[in-house]
Amino acid sequence: MSSTADLLFTNAIVLTMDKTMRQFEPGAVAVKGDSILAVGPEEDLKKEFPDAPTLDCGKKVLMPGLVNAHTHVPMTLLRGLADDLRLDVWLLGYMMPVEREFVSPEFVRLGTLIGCAEFIRTGVTAFADMYYFEEDVAKATVEAGLRAVLGQTVLKFPAPDAPSYEDSLAAAREFIVGWKNHHLIIPAVSPHAPYTCTADILQDCAALAAEFDVPLHTHIAETAFEVENMRKEQGMPVVPYIKKQNLFDAKVLLAHCVHLDYGEIITLKHNNAGIAHNPSSNMKLASGMAPVTQMLDEGLNVGIGTDGPSSNNDLDMFEEVRLAAFMAKTRENDPTALPANEALLMATRMGAEAMHIGHLTGSIEPGKRADLILVDIDTLHNSPRFRRDPNGIYAQLVYAGKSTDVSDVMVNGRWVMRDHELLTIDLPTLLAQAEVYAQKIDQFLILREESVLAKLIAIGGATEGESYEVQAKVRIPDTDPIVNSLQKPEIEVVYSRHYHEFDTYFLFDDPTQGSVRHREDEFINTKGEVEYVRARLTHVGPAREEEFPSKVLLSRSRFLAPSTQSLRFLREYFTPDDELSIEKDRLRWLVRYKGEEFYVNIDTVSKPQLGHYLEVKSRTWSRTDAQEKAALIAELITILGADPGETVTQDYAEIVDQAGRA
Amino acid sequence: MSSTADLLFTNAIVLTMDKTMRQFEPGAVAVKGDSILAVGPEEDLKKEFPDAPTLDCGKKVLMPGLVNAHTHVPMTLLRGLADDLRLDVWLLGYMMPVEREFVSPEFVRLGTLIGCAEFIRTGVTAFADMYYFEEDVAKATVEAGLRAVLGQTVLKFPAPDAPSYEDSLAAAREFIVGWKNHHLIIPAVSPHAPYTCTADILQDCAALAAEFDVPLHTHIAETAFEVENMRKEQGMPVVPYIKKQNLFDAKVLLAHCVHLDYGEIITLKHNNAGIAHNPSSNMKLASGMAPVTQMLDEGLNVGIGTDGPSSNNDLDMFEEVRLAAFMAKTRENDPTALPANEALLMATRMGAEAMHIGHLTGSIEPGKRADLILVDIDTLHNSPRFRRDPNGIYAQLVYAGKSTDVSDVMVNGRWVMRDHELLTIDLPTLLAQAEVYAQKIDQFLILREESVLAKLIAIGGATEGESYEVQAKVRIPDTDPIVNSLQKPEIEVVYSRHYHEFDTYFLFDDPTQGSVRHREDEFINTKGEVEYVRARLTHVGPAREEEFPSKVLLSRSRFLAPSTQSLRFLREYFTPDDELSIEKDRLRWLVRYKGEEFYVNIDTVSKPQLGHYLEVKSRTWSRTDAQEKAALIAELITILGADPGETVTQDYAEIVDQAGRA
Repeated sequence: MSSTADLLFTNAIVLTMDKTMRQFEPGAVAVKGDSILAVGPEEDLKKEFPDAPTLDCGKKVLMPGLVNAHTHVPMTLLRGLADDLRLDVWLLGYMMPVEREFVSPEFVRLGTLIGCAEFIRTGVTAFADMYYFEEDVAKATVEAGLRAVLGQTVLKFPAPDAPSYEDSLAAAREFIVGWKNHHLIIPAVSPHAPYTCTADILQDCAALAAEFDVPLHTHIAETAFEVENMRKEQGMPVVPYIKKQNLFDAKVLLAHCVHLDYGEIITLKHNNAGIAHNPSSNMKLASGMAPVTQMLDEGLNVGIGTDGPSSNNDLDMFEEVRLAAFMAKTRENDPTALPANEALLMATRMGAEAMHIGHLTGSIEPGKRADLILVDIDTLHNSPRFRRDPNGIYAQLVYAGKSTDVSDVMVNGRWVMRDHELLTIDLPTLLAQAEVYAQKIDQFLILREESVLAKLIAIGGATEGESYEVQAKVRIPDTDPIVNSLQKPEIEVVYSRHYHEFDTYFLFDDPTQGSVRHREDEFINTKGEVEYVRARLTHVGPAREEEFPSKVLLSRSRFLAPSTQSLRFLREYFTPDDELSIEKDRLRWLVRYKGEEFYVNIDTVSKPQLGHYLEVKSRTWSRTDAQEKAALIAELITILGADPGETVTQDYAEIVDQAGRA
Repeated sequence: MSSTADLLFTNAIVLTMDKTMRQFEPGAVAVKGDSILAVGPEEDLKKEFPDAPTLDCGKKVLMPGLVNAHTHVPMTLLRGLADDLRLDVWLLGYMMPVEREFVSPEFVRLGTLIGCAEFIRTGVTAFADMYYFEEDVAKATVEAGLRAVLGQTVLKFPAPDAPSYEDSLAAAREFIVGWKNHHLIIPAVSPHAPYTCTADILQDCAALAAEFDVPLHTHIAETAFEVENMRKEQGMPVVPYIKKQNLFDAKVLLAHCVHLDYGEIITLKHNNAGIAHNPSSNMKLASGMAPVTQMLDEGLNVGIGTDGPSSNNDLDMFEEVRLAAFMAKTRENDPTALPANEALLMATRMGAEAMHIGHLTGSIEPGKRADLILVDIDTLHNSPRFRRDPNGIYAQLVYAGKSTDVSDVMVNGRWVMRDHELLTIDLPTLLAQAEVYAQKIDQFLILREESVLAKLIAIGGATEGESYEVQAKVRIPDTDPIVNSLQKPEIEVVYSRHYHEFDTYFLFDDPTQGSVRHREDEFINTKGEVEYVRARLTHVGPAREEEFPSKVLLSRSRFLAPSTQSLRFLREYFTPDDELSIEKDRLRWLVRYKGEEFYVNIDTVSKPQLGHYLEVKSRTWSRTDAQEKAALIAELITILGADPGETVTQDYAEIVDQAGRA
């Protein structure tokens, strides 16, 4: 061969991670421009490239850079923000509200650069990302000098970078067009997950990815709950569903794949899907243990990812590889499952193949890009070294190696770290900027956490109701006489309803916090059947009783929100000091009296057994209006035949609370 | 207070890990001599100790040193020797044979010093060990300056440091007497496990520990197999069994506890047992996931251990704590299980309590020893920092912290590491010595692995049989005529037997390796029932056929061993190139003919169906004797009515092998 090399790595333990897992010791690698020219025994390459400048690797391991097959890199800025929470509380209660408030091109740039610094330090030369403002992720990645498959997120909800999914899709198309032929960036589209996208979004994303022949990167089958819901709503598990939405028209990279059946694994194999296994994230969020051994047995390309640094909480692929091996052994009850050499392969060549960039990186082979790292195995925690078993070197790296053993990193033929020194990133400046963000986010959440109401607003959709409450509640011995009185001519019934109501009150020791009521209403039809169920959340502020002396009039703030979350979620999110449950049967009328509308409720409280009550109520924004209505309510009480002397001023929660303490 | 302090740590994030988990920021800790004098807000302690020399901690975390509740520290010298193997193959095939060959006081000293260096680097100030030559572990630990509970191992088998268990027990007593009041070492006794000890050993160890009021450190319920066997053999699970052996007369530290039922957990709590949970080891060896949440719920003290560095493969407690949290979440399918603060507590105060040294270490409280570490959380992988949630700091340490973030370590008031520099250990010299050991061990195993016979001998008990085989094998059309011929007067029958034999041959491509035969014999009694089963291993060397031209005479080496291992173990251990199974019915006689004894076998080979054979055989060490017997065998063949023309020279494995290839 008459080629010349720009650099000859010598005196290394070369792990090629190629098809036959060749090792050379002492080995050498020749690099020219952005690519690997040759790899082999040191003696041979020294002869072949006698004039090339050499780099003595000092008996370190020279191997392909690690490949992180799934992450959300800008979330370095949210690392450690909230931990040990359930997925929904963590995501909907913390991550998404903070992202809505803070995620911007500047945030994304900063988070990406910090993440790239961590990648470089820990030996990662290529990663697959999914986030917002992916254009800015791309710019920062190029600045850091790393290789990446970057997916612009598309969601059915408004996102920090797009008010609608049509905007997201347009942004994704523009991103792909702009970056299609970049030497480091492979643009992609990332519909977030089947459950956060509509079928249309999935189809549109697949078409877009196929049109430009770029990867489609998404999350599937992360939790058992997701699969259950999919079966319930679509009558099939996740893989057939995404197949139906044409997802396999594209080169897919599927993160998680924790809950798959055998048939789904076969379907994935037939469609050449790449898989990203996320050990730490799946364990930390208790998502489950993915069937990695089964996927590998069927010949799928399974890579390893860190997931976002806010669910991990770092970007350390050494930890992930070790954990991948540990999890497979634990899941299969077999210590020979996923041995170290295979685990490391998942984090190199196989990971690159899963990301559909196996032609570029993942192994030391002539023609591939020069994405190389040096790892010191002559460390305290990795001594001594046994040479008997050729797989021993992989076991050393996987079971005792630390990411801090990575000393030098080259990407695309360019040094990005030499002897632990970052060459492309000015870390102190970035970390100082990150601290400023952290303080702002802390402040935002501290204010929010101080107020139950702010927490309610943070999870979305709460709107303020009228603040003046005009209400009389009267204990009654029986319901029938009152029901009959509603037929009196001076009262016009607009409509009537029948509900069975289940109320849960979250109570707080601090009286200024008010309370949160979760109400589930079963709507009972004329046949006595439950026709539908709705759930609502209400934040009730403390009454400003000083405003009115009357028992009927109150002023208090009141916020209403549809409750799309489970009671369990709300309990973990609001962490009330106390809790109280009430169950009642409610007959409800909207009536018109002297030209004003009032709600008349005839309640039978069954749990706890408090008996029967008549409520007449109205709400208004106007103080004058409130006073006028208060007078009309007093008249109505009498017309309906209830005893004004039996009027109570507390709401049900207060009645139960007092009864409980008595 | 009028005390003076020798040193005042200032400007730290102090995590006391005390009963109320107090934190001080900026906090301070005053140390005098070997102990903690005071802990609190920096401002207060500066006033209280105005004259004390100060150490500015630069906003690092100042916390109690980590406590490693279970390890075998000298095994640093065997780290990475053999991985991805099943527990029995790993232990019986690799660890124990190497230990029998290499473990000595010098080995133990070197391994302990290297392990202690790793402990110091990773922030561990106290550990619980179980190994051989514990006296030498103690000396090295004191040299390194660490605190430890050290258990002298007692086993029913000969150990590297004792030919019998009586010797082990005597050594344990001597060790305890000698080290009873040491300021760093708490001597202990370590019966290895219920299944490697007799009931007597357990009782004697318990009595010894109770006599001196020292801990008893053992392994229990590590694998499901162990529990199954215990139930089968003793009719009860492990905890009732050890209770029956009076183990709870002692202060016990129980490693693993993976497979326990609820009743056993309650029994452990009643007996104030300390538990050592070993996350990496349990995952790597696929032992299972321990019921840590349940044990904590019942109030048990559960510490965390690395286990030995040959099953981990390092001594990094940061990894173990993180993994403990991850495993509990995964096992319970609940991400809120074992939050970071509790996981870190297990590795500090609770771990010390599990080791029965909670009065000395594990938290920063006045009166406890000054076992302190500084941890930098202002690192790339641990930035930014959020302050909203007081538990956030534990999450930072547990989920994103690395052991390499530990910068300074003090034990018993003495510095053992300052700014990442080890002060008590000369590492380069030790690592060079470790490499020499590794090379010797490599050589030992390489030689052994080259020889199937050496591998057989390594797992114990093989003895060489007579090397001259005198044997004639003759195909016969039917068995009955031969059986009848045995009644002829010139043949004296000594005894007869009936077996059903299951043979598995491990074959190797290299003919010089010979083969390994695993035989299971069912002994059939006169009623035709299986009376007992025995298993044997035989290594058959290749025949040196050149010695004799005769079909009857052969010389070959032959080693016999009782087979106590499963066929699965043997298959994984010997990794044969090929395997072959034969099933046959054998009628066997020992006969005397002309004053010499011979075995007569009448075989019916049923799998594969090869028909009937008569074998007449004898073995001897003497060449002359062999030649004489060969002549007598030829006579016997004729007397028994078989056709000498039907003589075959191959053994059954060769016949089957040829048939298979034909």
